[in-house]
Amino acid sequence: MPIAGRGYTTAGVRILSQFFAAPVLAFAGLLLLLAAPASAHDPEWSIAIHGGAGTMSPERMDAETRAEYEAALQAALDAGSKVLAEGGTAMDAVVAAITLMEDDPKFNAGRGAVFTWDGVNEHDASIMDGRTRDAGASTGTRNVRHPILLARAVMEDSPHVFLSREGAEQFAAEQGLELVDPAWFGTDSRREALERYKAAQMEEQGMSQLAIDTKFGTVGAVARDSNGNLAAGTSTGGMTGKRWGRIGDSPIIGSGTYADNRACAVSATGWGEYFIRTNVAAEICARMRMKGESAKVAGEAVIAEMGALGGNGGVIVAGANGDLAFAFDTTGMYRGRADSEGLNEVAIFAGEDSGEDD
Amino acid sequence: MPIAGRGYTTAGVRILSQFFAAPVLAFAGLLLLLAAPASAHDPEWSIAIHGGAGTMSPERMDAETRAEYEAALQAALDAGSKVLAEGGTAMDAVVAAITLMEDDPKFNAGRGAVFTWDGVNEHDASIMDGRTRDAGASTGTRNVRHPILLARAVMEDSPHVFLSREGAEQFAAEQGLELVDPAWFGTDSRREALERYKAAQMEEQGMSQLAIDTKFGTVGAVARDSNGNLAAGTSTGGMTGKRWGRIGDSPIIGSGTYADNRACAVSATGWGEYFIRTNVAAEICARMRMKGESAKVAGEAVIAEMGALGGNGGVIVAGANGDLAFAFDTTGMYRGRADSEGLNEVAIFAGEDSGEDD
Repeated sequence: MPIAGRGYTTAGVRILSQFFAAPVLAFAGLLLLLAAPASAHDPEWSIAIHGGAGTMSPERMDAETRAEYEAALQAALDAGSKVLAEGGTAMDAVVAAITLMEDDPKFNAGRGAVFTWDGVNEHDASIMDGRTRDAGASTGTRNVRHPILLARAVMEDSPHVFLSREGAEQFAAEQGLELVDPAWFGTDSRREALERYKAAQMEEQGMSQLAIDTKFGTVGAVARDSNGNLAAGTSTGGMTGKRWGRIGDSPIIGSGTYADNRACAVSATGWGEYFIRTNVAAEICARMRMKGESAKVAGEAVIAEMGALGGNGGVIVAGANGDLAFAFDTTGMYRGRADSEGLNEVAIFAGEDSGEDD
Repeated sequence: MPIAGRGYTTAGVRILSQFFAAPVLAFAGLLLLLAAPASAHDPEWSIAIHGGAGTMSPERMDAETRAEYEAALQAALDAGSKVLAEGGTAMDAVVAAITLMEDDPKFNAGRGAVFTWDGVNEHDASIMDGRTRDAGASTGTRNVRHPILLARAVMEDSPHVFLSREGAEQFAAEQGLELVDPAWFGTDSRREALERYKAAQMEEQGMSQLAIDTKFGTVGAVARDSNGNLAAGTSTGGMTGKRWGRIGDSPIIGSGTYADNRACAVSATGWGEYFIRTNVAAEICARMRMKGESAKVAGEAVIAEMGALGGNGGVIVAGANGDLAFAFDTTGMYRGRADSEGLNEVAIFAGEDSGEDD
């Protein structure tokens, strides 16, 4: 009962006799409850992460695999939480969580990225600072170990928001970011996924399931720090078998990533083309800002609208008050969330959380 | 006097004697005026175009140059209007207007595009259909004569929304779009602008004016057709001296271009980085949809918000009801608008229109 506790420490209440204490305290507590701003229970800091949405199901995932994913999500969540608990910025927390997932081959970002049609790994990322609405993004890089750090460098050290391909790689080199041999990113399972994708294309069958399974795995994070600043970031290898220099929603400010201290921070994962058309991330913030919707209500409304056009996927949302919400229309989304009030959980399948509307 | 004229053709009025005709007609006209729903005066179709915003002033532009720009704007406006007057789609009208401006070396799109730091012309474009919210975009192509046609092909003939660079060129070739020698796009004046830009960078002086003058010139169009469908498109060569594969707002669905039959169609021009961060095009539509603002009010509010972050530029907006609005915070924007009610005007400098709030 934090409200009553806060009431008891009020100086005027302490001088009352024991006889009157209980009912008076209750009354004082009620007054404080009525007078308390909506933020009385808001966490000092909060963070949510995702590692992609898709058609995962408990039946198709063995216990060992599940434990590995949960451990990887927990590690990323812990890395971001540590930054925030020590008074760090939302921006630093987002980067801490995402860089870990970029190095983890289980996720489709950085190491473990899916293969393009031409058999290479091409990375997209974006980041946004809700305090200033500064933003940075890059698309189509092949040798930058941490695309999210490149996005941040674009934001902080270039006059631009969005750089592409060889030019973005050149900028990364000029900034002294870590470059790696492109072989660093490739994994056997992703290469096999490309082979299956190409085979299915040839046969022109079984494509719908494959098409869904090959679109997901993007990673992202949103956070609110103890100064009330929001940040969001997203990093991905895109879609298996993508062609023609395809760019999805992940590096698009407004679609895959948005942060605005007035409303919210959002990172998206899913069928990027539909997320771009629905302007998912900024639309969620617009609804929260203009209609006063909660993170949960706005997130679910926009995912439903995106789904009505034919797409699927999910989002993580942090509200200006520190609320954290997940919204997705797939059977699962690798995800986790934590805050200064003790919330700390990771989940994979739909319905697994402690309650998605808190 | 369209109202009185409409009144006179009403059967009930025709049988009155000449003696009573004049005052009765006036009274009937008043009744019709009062009874008319708000949409009675909505145009069947409407279209607006822009050829970029910037620091142009009447003092610095000679009469001949001015006449040339006005003629070019009128030609593009007429091309789009013709499509709409003949019952064509908003999408076709937008494409008709933009392809003409892409071929005109006076505008920074297609032929006449600005030069990158490396001395080449790289084109970005995007297009969106408000009926379905289908969208297409491309960035960084060097040999596609009409980038807006490539954006449309991406929308209609690929599973993707956004293609980039060599991949986008390959897709254009596969689709049979017209390819040209990159020399087609270059003009002496744009090449000289790059030299001036580089010289100023070396001297680290006089950059602020140059920086402004080198960011603009994008072309775009928005339209509403007689079926009530909206469309928007934007095409550009980007910024003089752009580096590292920089992508501006023009090919970003949500920032440079957005169309949604529920609200509006928008095409933007200006300092792209700020337009991305403010999510300009979709934010205007969101305000119209969620707050009920007019095209003019929403456009001006979002340009002001973008300007408050430090950017500048402008937008053209078509509302679902056919309203057309311009909003810009520069001293001028090459622009034009026309509708089925007889509106037909082009303008360059601020304050030149017949009234920007109609």
